[in-house]
Amino acid sequence: MINISLMGAGRIGKMHAEIISAHSNVNLKYVYDINKDSALQVAEQNKAKIANSPEEAINTDKIDAILIASATPTHTQFITMGAKAGKAVFCEKPIDLDINKVNECMAAIKDIDIPLQIGFNRRFDNSHAKVQQARLKKEIGELEMLIITSRDPEPPGLEYLNAAGGFFRDTTIHDFDLSRFILGEDPIVQVSAFGDNLFDENAKQAGDFDTAMFVLKSKAGVLIHINNSRRAVYGYDQRVEVFGSKGMVISNNQTPTSIESFTETSTSSKQPVLHFFIERYAQAYKDQFNHFIECINNNNKPKVTFEDGRSALIIANAAYESHKQKKTIEITYE
Amino acid sequence: MINISLMGAGRIGKMHAEIISAHSNVNLKYVYDINKDSALQVAEQNKAKIANSPEEAINTDKIDAILIASATPTHTQFITMGAKAGKAVFCEKPIDLDINKVNECMAAIKDIDIPLQIGFNRRFDNSHAKVQQARLKKEIGELEMLIITSRDPEPPGLEYLNAAGGFFRDTTIHDFDLSRFILGEDPIVQVSAFGDNLFDENAKQAGDFDTAMFVLKSKAGVLIHINNSRRAVYGYDQRVEVFGSKGMVISNNQTPTSIESFTETSTSSKQPVLHFFIERYAQAYKDQFNHFIECINNNNKPKVTFEDGRSALIIANAAYESHKQKKTIEITYE
Amino acid sequence: MINISLMGAGRIGKMHAEIISAHSNVNLKYVYDINKDSALQVAEQNKAKIANSPEEAINTDKIDAILIASATPTHTQFITMGAKAGKAVFCEKPIDLDINKVNECMAAIKDIDIPLQIGFNRRFDNSHAKVQQARLKKEIGELEMLIITSRDPEPPGLEYLNAAGGFFRDTTIHDFDLSRFILGEDPIVQVSAFGDNLFDENAKQAGDFDTAMFVLKSKAGVLIHINNSRRAVYGYDQRVEVFGSKGMVISNNQTPTSIESFTETSTSSKQPVLHFFIERYAQAYKDQFNHFIECINNNNKPKVTFEDGRSALIIANAAYESHKQKKTIEITYE
Amino acid sequence: MINISLMGAGRIGKMHAEIISAHSNVNLKYVYDINKDSALQVAEQNKAKIANSPEEAINTDKIDAILIASATPTHTQFITMGAKAGKAVFCEKPIDLDINKVNECMAAIKDIDIPLQIGFNRRFDNSHAKVQQARLKKEIGELEMLIITSRDPEPPGLEYLNAAGGFFRDTTIHDFDLSRFILGEDPIVQVSAFGDNLFDENAKQAGDFDTAMFVLKSKAGVLIHINNSRRAVYGYDQRVEVFGSKGMVISNNQTPTSIESFTETSTSSKQPVLHFFIERYAQAYKDQFNHFIECINNNNKPKVTFEDGRSALIIANAAYESHKQKKTIEITYE
Repeated sequence: MINISLMGAGRIGKMHAEIISAHSNVNLKYVYDINKDSALQVAEQNKAKIANSPEEAINTDKIDAILIASATPTHTQFITMGAKAGKAVFCEKPIDLDINKVNECMAAIKDIDIPLQIGFNRRFDNSHAKVQQARLKKEIGELEMLIITSRDPEPPGLEYLNAAGGFFRDTTIHDFDLSRFILGEDPIVQVSAFGDNLFDENAKQAGDFDTAMFVLKSKAGVLIHINNSRRAVYGYDQRVEVFGSKGMVISNNQTPTSIESFTETSTSSKQPVLHFFIERYAQAYKDQFNHFIECINNNNKPKVTFEDGRSALIIANAAYESHKQKKTIEITYE
Repeated sequence: MINISLMGAGRIGKMHAEIISAHSNVNLKYVYDINKDSALQVAEQNKAKIANSPEEAINTDKIDAILIASATPTHTQFITMGAKAGKAVFCEKPIDLDINKVNECMAAIKDIDIPLQIGFNRRFDNSHAKVQQARLKKEIGELEMLIITSRDPEPPGLEYLNAAGGFFRDTTIHDFDLSRFILGEDPIVQVSAFGDNLFDENAKQAGDFDTAMFVLKSKAGVLIHINNSRRAVYGYDQRVEVFGSKGMVISNNQTPTSIESFTETSTSSKQPVLHFFIERYAQAYKDQFNHFIECINNNNKPKVTFEDGRSALIIANAAYESHKQKKTIEITYE
Repeated sequence: MINISLMGAGRIGKMHAEIISAHSNVNLKYVYDINKDSALQVAEQNKAKIANSPEEAINTDKIDAILIASATPTHTQFITMGAKAGKAVFCEKPIDLDINKVNECMAAIKDIDIPLQIGFNRRFDNSHAKVQQARLKKEIGELEMLIITSRDPEPPGLEYLNAAGGFFRDTTIHDFDLSRFILGEDPIVQVSAFGDNLFDENAKQAGDFDTAMFVLKSKAGVLIHINNSRRAVYGYDQRVEVFGSKGMVISNNQTPTSIESFTETSTSSKQPVLHFFIERYAQAYKDQFNHFIECINNNNKPKVTFEDGRSALIIANAAYESHKQKKTIEITYE
Repeated sequence: MINISLMGAGRIGKMHAEIISAHSNVNLKYVYDINKDSALQVAEQNKAKIANSPEEAINTDKIDAILIASATPTHTQFITMGAKAGKAVFCEKPIDLDINKVNECMAAIKDIDIPLQIGFNRRFDNSHAKVQQARLKKEIGELEMLIITSRDPEPPGLEYLNAAGGFFRDTTIHDFDLSRFILGEDPIVQVSAFGDNLFDENAKQAGDFDTAMFVLKSKAGVLIHINNSRRAVYGYDQRVEVFGSKGMVISNNQTPTSIESFTETSTSSKQPVLHFFIERYAQAYKDQFNHFIECINNNNKPKVTFEDGRSALIIANAAYESHKQKKTIEITYE
């Protein structure tokens, strides 16, 4: 039985608490949140205790691992604490919004050998994973183009936007990571970014975008297009398309059931696509956590590394630079 | 240049007149209809002359072929006249509603060698033809089940119903023929029919059904299901499914464009299916006529024969018998 | 915490054991099987004990409910034992293959008020349930036709066939129940059945069919078509179509992911459909059990009753009579 | 009856000859081509005469209109000749590869009032036109993103590439025009282009690209993505997606029939998409020509103007500039 402390009891923390509780070989031991009420509620619902401080949650023999789902600015601190205490660490994306803090954290833990996994959940989605396999096994021949459509169902509030670190670092970072996942050994070396303000007053006020497009290029010359929106009224639009010398594979949207309706006005109409990430990526969130537990049990290195979290942030930062300078930016990762 | 007389200038006659006119090697010479105004209108629109009698239209050196699209009771008379005059004959389905008249006609023309084609247009539909090919080439292995869904968009009026000879002989006859087409050498030997009155007052008044289901069996044991309705509000529903030892092929419905809409209430919604037979089978009607002309030019026997028309009627008659007796009827074709 | 005894530790018993174990408010207490090794294995995997006799499993204060997944001939005995012991009872379909035994069981338990649920899992499938809702809420207007396609991926062995009670009572019984579920208050009053032997030598040897078609009629005149096969090489084909005065809703097949492939030979090709009932109806099996537990907790009558199990068997029996007599059989349920 | 001279008897000229011949109110009078054999062949097949010089084809009272399908460098010369002779002019895209020649031609004909139409056929495709209507009628609310996927089935030869004027001016020009068509009054003001050499040695030798991506922006802020390839092994990939505040509409690919196959390895597999432009845009080519004839008959201005041809070329030129400078280029149209 693996005992876990959960850091952070907000929306995403609650979801993780349920996944932890449902796992037959894992026990949720402590819940920590600066908001004690939130911690208490999640702890009670999942038969765990609350910790009164990060130290109480992390620096204890009673746990084997920590899952960090707290506010982004606390991530690197908790990663470092967890690593130094010899705990396995799972940390939600992004590691941090500031590359300097990420680099400092990397330096602080570089000699510590623990399972450390970053929460790029989409890598664990069965459909997206099939797309990655299609590239890896060359079912599509040589990869030539990758196209990711990634649109949220509705914009978040102003408070969220002010803390999120900007559209590219908050949202597109998933798509940058998914691109890296599909490209495998072939690194992304260029980015051109196009941010836009078309409908969301909150985004405008927060100095953020609500719509964006990107073109990236890999070292081998693969062209990558990403498009994002904060509002797709038909639901969480998540499509991935790989195109190569021998064909194309698309990971398409998903609907809650397999029903189709035929009326006077339409044919083969399906239900709206799954609403948002908790519904769309339920299987991925679960399997991502299963992978983390397996890595702990078998002392393996998780498939999504600190370096993956850092690289995605570097691309996001370069994307901001591209938007500002209205030109293509070359990316270096050192 | 092949010269043709068109017998019948109603809705289906008009459609044939346009197909004839559009053919670069065919000339519409005469139009005959008991309603002279109708004949005149179709003749004028297609630069043809009207004939004042069937004899004038058929018994003349100026034409090579006749296309019969007149009222059903006139079919056998015109077929016989055309055959005796040595003309190639294309006749709309059904040959007649009365099997005795069909047999008499068969006897009258049995020694005359002319191209004679019955208007089972669906055999020429590219999608249905692919299904037939899938069976013929054993792409689905051995055929085990055949399922035909065939529903009109809206019920006809009482006048039409009173003249049409009943749902099975007017509508299902197409599906009986399509079944025979797909089964090829394997004859249909049993039929069980289930007629129903669910919504159409006119059908009830005409002593006819508005809804029906059938199960047929071939000599080799293939099970066939057909379902019919006089009203599918989403359009002309025309699906054919063949199922066999190695898989399944479906000829699916068709929409006027390839657009798909995504809204708050639906995903991948297409336009309603093509409305009715003139839209859905436009390609088939054209290619059916092309085939007739090719048969004339090359002195070939058309693929859809008098015998095909007769056999479909025999099945329809057996279906009525089955409905009446509430049991399975064995079919004989002699 | 509800404690349960599992009767039967075969393939379907194992599946139920896992569902029981995964439920957070239920405890698998005992496992009974005439094959002690099977019982032991399932008990160990799910931290339960084995019972050495049905009595030990059922007549004990330590349990609240029994789940019957044993061989069909034991069902009525265990139902009766469970009911007399005051336990909630969940019983896999069919109740029994012999209507007399079913009637005796019904008489034996008629005055005992316990939650008793029959395992018609498909009623709990989210997609099929949406189809039922579409009829109930008249989204398709008045129901006129219902079409069920239900094909297994591969035929079972001879041993299974010899015990299963025949294709109609073993397999189609699910489709008869699903028809009853969708029809709601409108009873099925006629059946015509067409069994066939097309490919499976084992079926022939067992005196059973491998292929079948049915047409049923409800009191209100709704026509129902069912088709079955023991072998669909592309996977477990499970489609339900309701057609009515205002449109059509189809519960379509499901694939393991949402990927689509495009190659030189095909477009939009999806993965094969989910292989068999354990994969296709995973959600339904789970929700069926959740419903049973909720009924125990809230002292409600389960949605799938003993009467439902009995009625489906009566239809299956009438179907055999129809096949034998080659005619439509009127169904009475008393 | 409108009489037409066809300038150019190559592949696309032949196609136009057939469309002209099939039109019931149009007569193909002359065919001109520098290759007399080609001219002769097309003339014979379509019952026309050959012209020995452009002057003979254009400066004659016997014709009302010219259709220019000759080599690109001759376009402006023939447009000018046709306009000065008072003929209606239909000219294949592009007007010319050199913007100076286009501007000179514009100046030369600016005071002549004749129907002049440029061959951007895709505007006449029924599916793409529905997408444009969805934007115009605000079925998708306010347009926010437009995504065009446009890939040829196979790369052309070196000779074609050397004459074609480059990927952006030869191929993407269609997508630039389609973008302008869908945007309507909202002009494209920025372009960022990313050319790539991934597989085609001929392209490399010709100094051309085989793969490309683009991001454009309209004055109102709409973001537009285009991606192109010279080789999609599954056929001519032509998709258009408009995304807005109230939903999304996609003009999807088309297959030759509506059949779907189900095998051990795949589900719902369709035939490969229509091979190339002649198949995919057959309806569009025909309706584009019908529009031209209607404009002549009704003395209307064609919907696709000289200015449209010029603007698309200006965008293509800016795209080359963007690729060279690796930055976003602002577009001006004067």
